[in-house]
Amino acid sequence: MSSSFGTTITVSTFGTSHGHAIGAIVDGLPCGFTVDMKALEAFIARRAPGKSQLHTQRKEADIPQFLSGIVDNTLSGSPLAFQILNTSHHSQDYQNLQDIPRPSHADYTARLRYGDHVDMRGGGHFSGRLTAPICVAGGIALQILKAKGITVAGHIKQLGPIVDTSINMVTPDIEALVAISGETIPMVSPKARTDAETLITHLRQDCDSIGGIIQMVVTGFPKGIGNPNYDGLENRLAKTVFGVPAVKGISFGSGFAGCLERGSEQNDPFTIVDGTIRTTKNNSGGIQGGISNGMPLIMQVGIKPTASIFKPQQSVSLEGKTEKTLIIKGRHDPCIVLRAVPVMEAITALVLLDFLAPVHEYNNEP
Amino acid sequence: MSSSFGTTITVSTFGTSHGHAIGAIVDGLPCGFTVDMKALEAFIARRAPGKSQLHTQRKEADIPQFLSGIVDNTLSGSPLAFQILNTSHHSQDYQNLQDIPRPSHADYTARLRYGDHVDMRGGGHFSGRLTAPICVAGGIALQILKAKGITVAGHIKQLGPIVDTSINMVTPDIEALVAISGETIPMVSPKARTDAETLITHLRQDCDSIGGIIQMVVTGFPKGIGNPNYDGLENRLAKTVFGVPAVKGISFGSGFAGCLERGSEQNDPFTIVDGTIRTTKNNSGGIQGGISNGMPLIMQVGIKPTASIFKPQQSVSLEGKTEKTLIIKGRHDPCIVLRAVPVMEAITALVLLDFLAPVHEYNNEP
Amino acid sequence: MSSSFGTTITVSTFGTSHGHAIGAIVDGLPCGFTVDMKALEAFIARRAPGKSQLHTQRKEADIPQFLSGIVDNTLSGSPLAFQILNTSHHSQDYQNLQDIPRPSHADYTARLRYGDHVDMRGGGHFSGRLTAPICVAGGIALQILKAKGITVAGHIKQLGPIVDTSINMVTPDIEALVAISGETIPMVSPKARTDAETLITHLRQDCDSIGGIIQMVVTGFPKGIGNPNYDGLENRLAKTVFGVPAVKGISFGSGFAGCLERGSEQNDPFTIVDGTIRTTKNNSGGIQGGISNGMPLIMQVGIKPTASIFKPQQSVSLEGKTEKTLIIKGRHDPCIVLRAVPVMEAITALVLLDFLAPVHEYNNEP
Amino acid sequence: MSSSFGTTITVSTFGTSHGHAIGAIVDGLPCGFTVDMKALEAFIARRAPGKSQLHTQRKEADIPQFLSGIVDNTLSGSPLAFQILNTSHHSQDYQNLQDIPRPSHADYTARLRYGDHVDMRGGGHFSGRLTAPICVAGGIALQILKAKGITVAGHIKQLGPIVDTSINMVTPDIEALVAISGETIPMVSPKARTDAETLITHLRQDCDSIGGIIQMVVTGFPKGIGNPNYDGLENRLAKTVFGVPAVKGISFGSGFAGCLERGSEQNDPFTIVDGTIRTTKNNSGGIQGGISNGMPLIMQVGIKPTASIFKPQQSVSLEGKTEKTLIIKGRHDPCIVLRAVPVMEAITALVLLDFLAPVHEYNNEP
Repeated sequence: MSSSFGTTITVSTFGTSHGHAIGAIVDGLPCGFTVDMKALEAFIARRAPGKSQLHTQRKEADIPQFLSGIVDNTLSGSPLAFQILNTSHHSQDYQNLQDIPRPSHADYTARLRYGDHVDMRGGGHFSGRLTAPICVAGGIALQILKAKGITVAGHIKQLGPIVDTSINMVTPDIEALVAISGETIPMVSPKARTDAETLITHLRQDCDSIGGIIQMVVTGFPKGIGNPNYDGLENRLAKTVFGVPAVKGISFGSGFAGCLERGSEQNDPFTIVDGTIRTTKNNSGGIQGGISNGMPLIMQVGIKPTASIFKPQQSVSLEGKTEKTLIIKGRHDPCIVLRAVPVMEAITALVLLDFLAPVHEYNNEP
Repeated sequence: MSSSFGTTITVSTFGTSHGHAIGAIVDGLPCGFTVDMKALEAFIARRAPGKSQLHTQRKEADIPQFLSGIVDNTLSGSPLAFQILNTSHHSQDYQNLQDIPRPSHADYTARLRYGDHVDMRGGGHFSGRLTAPICVAGGIALQILKAKGITVAGHIKQLGPIVDTSINMVTPDIEALVAISGETIPMVSPKARTDAETLITHLRQDCDSIGGIIQMVVTGFPKGIGNPNYDGLENRLAKTVFGVPAVKGISFGSGFAGCLERGSEQNDPFTIVDGTIRTTKNNSGGIQGGISNGMPLIMQVGIKPTASIFKPQQSVSLEGKTEKTLIIKGRHDPCIVLRAVPVMEAITALVLLDFLAPVHEYNNEP
Repeated sequence: MSSSFGTTITVSTFGTSHGHAIGAIVDGLPCGFTVDMKALEAFIARRAPGKSQLHTQRKEADIPQFLSGIVDNTLSGSPLAFQILNTSHHSQDYQNLQDIPRPSHADYTARLRYGDHVDMRGGGHFSGRLTAPICVAGGIALQILKAKGITVAGHIKQLGPIVDTSINMVTPDIEALVAISGETIPMVSPKARTDAETLITHLRQDCDSIGGIIQMVVTGFPKGIGNPNYDGLENRLAKTVFGVPAVKGISFGSGFAGCLERGSEQNDPFTIVDGTIRTTKNNSGGIQGGISNGMPLIMQVGIKPTASIFKPQQSVSLEGKTEKTLIIKGRHDPCIVLRAVPVMEAITALVLLDFLAPVHEYNNEP
Repeated sequence: MSSSFGTTITVSTFGTSHGHAIGAIVDGLPCGFTVDMKALEAFIARRAPGKSQLHTQRKEADIPQFLSGIVDNTLSGSPLAFQILNTSHHSQDYQNLQDIPRPSHADYTARLRYGDHVDMRGGGHFSGRLTAPICVAGGIALQILKAKGITVAGHIKQLGPIVDTSINMVTPDIEALVAISGETIPMVSPKARTDAETLITHLRQDCDSIGGIIQMVVTGFPKGIGNPNYDGLENRLAKTVFGVPAVKGISFGSGFAGCLERGSEQNDPFTIVDGTIRTTKNNSGGIQGGISNGMPLIMQVGIKPTASIFKPQQSVSLEGKTEKTLIIKGRHDPCIVLRAVPVMEAITALVLLDFLAPVHEYNNEP
């Protein structure tokens, strides 16, 4: 069940980069919620390729066709299913990859795991394209959370050497993050955005790519949600986030840097604000013992640079067992980090909503 | 099921820091494997408290009493169950914590999640003491992996400001890591060990604590093991590792730093070594698309400093909703990172063995 | 995750009776297996409505459109997804059912569970129509099992008062069962078939319906497959079979009747046949302790009569909280048991294949 | 994870018939509930062997020693763990069973599944003795349900040829069932009890055994609880009940007999009673579409006769691959059905409580 995640609200994706369609089934969404389709399309568009010169030039509208689970834009209680047709694929661009795997891609390991018949054109079902259905499902989850007063937003904390404005972890300016969601480069600092644009343009010319660190911030998430040990907020978020291609690390609150501090620096003292227990720092990222403490949730995700660079690379022929130089053709996306921001928002929303789902009334006696 | 993990081989822990006993059930271990009890005890002893001046002075032998699943040291096919008696607890040391939660501990969130009746003496079932059963289960898993030619070993990559010798990720000297497993401070560099000892001694006097980053290395793990998307090696390792108290981050291969590089630096070129496909670098940490590629597995885990410091700290009275200064009494462990190394080896072994478990023959026709 | 089943091979269904489409995602099928599409269509046709006067007259071709997971009829390793368009639905026939629930249908309980917005036209996602995707997935599973020498076949053991020829449980004539799979009424006895046809024709005229007991027989299933306690063959088969609407009971081997016998009658003595251990009786139905013993697997499933009868029935208005007489219009299927036989074959095949799936090689080194 | 069941409330059992101890971990029970220990012991005693001449004469007090999760008889939020020491086992009685498997026992299939090292003395972890921990866990679940106004009770509906008084499925006299729970033979009819006693006494002398059908009745279970398709009340009950040794069938409401009726007989018409929607019949057994409809839950479970009869039986030598006559020595339990009644009550309570568990408040802000 490696293409699924979730406990009460489950998401099962399908499709390959170059197949007929991709899509997902989402089971457990609250019956009766009306989806704002315009807002959903706008959210999906943030991930969709081709919207800017900085992105891959593969153009796909990524409009979901709903197959079930929604009637007149209102969730109907049955599993939500949708497909997104693959309209723009050039399989021939990938032909030689069947024998010559791309470095740091899943081409080789997929072959090991599945055998010769695996369809890895465009990355198969390991492709980043599979994040499109996540954005459809997560876009709806974001709306449901919003209706509960919960906001999930992300920014690129660092892109290669370019560092964004740091976020106050105790009282984050979540609206500032929401405001930049429409930017091609979702960074708060205008200077960082300009620098990043210059860098990416250069990398495109140089046939190279760059990675970065995305930071997620969630405000309004209720206290006391989660579980200890192996099924807490961090466990499920981490498990799910590593399902997004190119993720190499995840941390919470003050992250790895905070782990090098002393306890007296790192600990979050308690205080009372307006009669409510809060902490004066938020190095814990809003989570202690796998359970939310009412502070903003803070998470960092490391995204490695696009593996499909267009520079010549050293690879091997699987059949010939000889070294080969690989030159990838097609469309080049020098910075997948940009499009990964809405994906992280989507996946974070889905995991958090899953935690909230059990707390509901079953008996709707008419 | 928050106290359980695993798919084919499952581990379910029980117990609280100050209850009668802690322990676990481990289901799915291979029937017929003979456990080297002496080696197991030696492994468990690495985590047990009180073995050095640098540790907490709470002394517990942590000897497991096996309740089922093993006959004459040989696994018998039924679920392995064992308990470890809690012999040394001073509940009175923790009495005031029921009302005044320790900063950056689960005291407060446990109360939110479970209500007033939750037993949080000594951290309850959120306590680091729950890693003792993990070491029993994982100690056996390590032996089973060893018999398959797989070695799992860890070291403290960085402790506060003190950096250990860096490990070659392509051809790691795994024996060097195994060799330091007996050290109180499992770092490769003797200089780093001395510096760390000085630091920890100072922190004990200063009633403070320090965190660090543990790096795990696995050699001999076969190619082609894992799954794509949401059930790969990284997903399961991350989900499980966050079950260990104080973990704040996890990364693989070149980690967060690698995410800031260019694709041309970060990608792992393929090559042929002795007729076998390998990579010349190992920034992927042996995993591509959730599946092993035959290179050493490399993982980093960030451990925050011990939250229970003995300096006065600002907290609140839960009942009175007023700020209070908290002073913790009892035994002080200024650096839980030391004991976390065998825990990480144990948990890594359990997750990896779980992935290997399905690949076996069922029909043992007599 | 109530619309999913399976451990290694998972099936997640979607769709409602009157929505745009129904379908499923099947994850974990063996990469490289080539599906015989003609045989699959023939199998699906056995369940499809409208093929005989005895069935419902709702006509749907039930042709699956594959969205992913198959290339040139060969499974490609990625999740298999397909949809079946709903072409023939008359929602207006069901309009009054929103307020007046059909007796012994899920109309009322769905409303309790999901609230007013649940889309229960035609039974919503509780509809028997959801067994169509099961037949697509199961039809493929049957082919994979067949290639391993495993045959799954069923017959109607009893339809109302009409009893079919009893099957030898030790050496069942599986070919006789396969041979009747093309019959509208899958019973072995020609006399029983004629009687059943007369009965069903009468019931259609009488606006009534009839239930029955289906018996499944599996030959060639290997020894030693399954698990003890809560995850054995019986556990998973039972859990899954109750997912088919109208199932009210399941039993194995000699079933409930065997439970009233003495141990000396019921026990299956061991013997040696051609050097292989077998039993001389098969009251256990090929399963002891949740694990296969090499004898044919035998299972009975009780299917209650179609709840949607066309006689006037006593119901209530959910809004008005008053009793109402309900008269159902539309197409009438007086005996869903007929079409349930291929559904049981499909679901049995999927569960059994799931048990066999872990026993495979991962490393397909090229 | 074959020794576990449950979704929100999970039960993991351990132990073998002849090992050091048996027991379980129960995770997810409501923190703060105070267990009536006297009532729990009385409940456990109903299953314990040796209490009557009609039972096996193996005598074990079956007193659970709680290892964690309970403080001063109040559930503390952490996983509940307990062990029951095995004090009375005569392993030598079972010695020859290692080579000569008992007919219709798991001796042979366990060997196939696990290999030569499996410890099957006394049935190993397939033993009925593993139902003792279920009764401890379920005894607590019964108390929690009782506090919510839900009563779970069972009786032997039929024992061999002896039929008990039939239960009204619409308005069952649940108190009559509770009243007989103290009887050695839990049947409502005094005549049936006398007949059964005579039969069992005779079977003991005859070295034979008898099976029967247990019927469970649950009153007070709320409406609208459950899920459609593969995770409904019937699915989970069936999956779990088949975890009890000797269960060969399960049915709901009017069961298999009801499946042979017409729709007009079988359907449950709706009516209004005191302003509440109810049904005038209850052939559905309180469940439609996997979800409770507010009527009493009714379930039947078929228990095959004790396989360990003391008559000579035909078996084989696994090593010698020759037929052998098997004569079992030790203590004989001619009718395990008697003790299976509290086990069914326990397991039913655990599954039902698991369904109710998600409907709770998380945030217990102090």
